[in-house]
Amino acid sequence: MSDDSKIIRSDGYRWKGVERKDYKTDTDNFRDIHRYSILGDETSDLNTHMRYFEVQPGGYSSLEQHRHTHSVMILRGSGTVILNDRMETVQVQDVIYISPHTIHQFHADSDEPLGFLCVVDSKRDKPEIPDDQTIKKFITDPKILKKIRK
Amino acid sequence: MSDDSKIIRSDGYRWKGVERKDYKTDTDNFRDIHRYSILGDETSDLNTHMRYFEVQPGGYSSLEQHRHTHSVMILRGSGTVILNDRMETVQVQDVIYISPHTIHQFHADSDEPLGFLCVVDSKRDKPEIPDDQTIKKFITDPKILKKIRK
Repeated sequence: MSDDSKIIRSDGYRWKGVERKDYKTDTDNFRDIHRYSILGDETSDLNTHMRYFEVQPGGYSSLEQHRHTHSVMILRGSGTVILNDRMETVQVQDVIYISPHTIHQFHADSDEPLGFLCVVDSKRDKPEIPDDQTIKKFITDPKILKKIRK
Repeated sequence: MSDDSKIIRSDGYRWKGVERKDYKTDTDNFRDIHRYSILGDETSDLNTHMRYFEVQPGGYSSLEQHRHTHSVMILRGSGTVILNDRMETVQVQDVIYISPHTIHQFHADSDEPLGFLCVVDSKRDKPEIPDDQTIKKFITDPKILKKIRK
């Protein structure tokens, strides 16, 4: 059985009935970021989950890698994304595809919140925090090595 | 193997390198709607496909039903969505979850284009156009029966 069809109303980068949640509960390598599970969560049987993450200025997501993929669209503000040895500014409606095992991190390094939609499979592996040796293998650019937070 | 990580730049409700495509090629029960496959298409091995559909004023998507689900976010304008016996106005950042076998249709019935993101599983069944008997089973509201285009 699947959830019934529904409309979830937007309310200024928030959605009616969708609570703000902890970004993660088992690690602490992130700052000033929250999660909103718009469609699909632990209790749902949807195949695909649509989440909204919002990072406050100065904050960042965890530096992580995993087998599952992320399909991301920026919805609010601008910031920086790190994808292995690549670092780029992203802004509203840019789409980022994060392939398996790419080390990635989002930084809200402009003066506004960075908000993004992130679509994932419901069945997915647990993100891993890369150790220094793994980081060195995937990231060589000194500017990126300086930018990452771990 | 999976596609490499990538950034697809937004360009005013268009995305660099993403072509406008026919909405469908095998039916004609729609009007003034185009498809943009932002992430994932027939040639890709992504599990989840992220598409953008844009309906011009007066246009509509096909009236259809299928087993697979749609996770939709409105990105541009406003319009009307029909979900079986329910008809509602939707606007930017509203999220619509379309559960299996829900008869649905989007109408761009304001003066602006209606653009929406639609996330689907790559492995999905073919949409069916409901016949009159099926429509009667799911839709009883005369206003909705008058609104639908088939």
